Amino acid sequence: MNVEFINPFIASLVNVLATMAQTELKVGKPKKKTDEMACGDVSGLIGMVGPQIRGSFSITFEEALALEIMQRMLGEKPAKIDLDVTDMVGEITNMVTGGAKNELAEKGYEFEMATPMVVSGKRHTISHKVDGPKIILPFSSDAGSAYLEICFDKL
Amino acid sequence: MNVEFINPFIASLVNVLATMAQTELKVGKPKKKTDEMACGDVSGLIGMVGPQIRGSFSITFEEALALEIMQRMLGEKPAKIDLDVTDMVGEITNMVTGGAKNELAEKGYEFEMATPMVVSGKRHTISHKVDGPKIILPFSSDAGSAYLEICFDKL
Repeated sequence: MNVEFINPFIASLVNVLATMAQTELKVGKPKKKTDEMACGDVSGLIGMVGPQIRGSFSITFEEALALEIMQRMLGEKPAKIDLDVTDMVGEITNMVTGGAKNELAEKGYEFEMATPMVVSGKRHTISHKVDGPKIILPFSSDAGSAYLEICFDKL
Repeated sequence: MNVEFINPFIASLVNVLATMAQTELKVGKPKKKTDEMACGDVSGLIGMVGPQIRGSFSITFEEALALEIMQRMLGEKPAKIDLDVTDMVGEITNMVTGGAKNELAEKGYEFEMATPMVVSGKRHTISHKVDGPKIILPFSSDAGSAYLEICFDKL
């Protein structure tokens, strides 16, 4: 998987959080995921299918960051991860993937998005089951951390 | 979403666990998911995209059942949910969805599968974010419980 494929997801995530939640994400060092697991409290996941590729994308938030994003987007901070928070995480997952999809389509990589799913649970981990490389990318912000993971078969 | 669409997933799950792990699942009463959440310790999730439909499927296992399936499939029982267990759950997710896909293709519903993802974490919950109805279906067995969830947009 080349950087041409990863960068649109990074740019889209940074852009969505800056625009929607006035939150600046600092991009950490990307790692090829081996044993390492992103660990967090609420995650948005989505599948992608195209003629040349199929894969999966996830974005995992620490609870503190997810709640602060709610505060900044909606002006109200829930006490814990509730249905409103998971709706917001699902929406962010859709927007980030949609942004990357548009940019990649211009480069000739076409795929369709499945519907997003959101997992909540203290310190859960996600394994993407693909034959290809897995990229995990940490982000930090003033309100907490997030992890982006993206994996494709057949690239 | 009609029963014609759900039944192939139910039949495929029952068949996969009977064949691969000699485990008989009893099918509970399907529910339209509203506030109700499947809660479990390890889940396989997969996205689906077709010309008429897009959606998501998940299967959530209690830890005890996941570990017992490992015992029955491989003759060894891990002490906890590890990489081998998540690999097995990813494989089951693929096989169940693949079985349903074949049956639905014969009925004229075509879709492609994204790559599976597996979540582990004590008592996590999953929300499928779709515009359409969500079906949650409990299963019981001699070794523990599982929950199947399936959701589609645009049916």
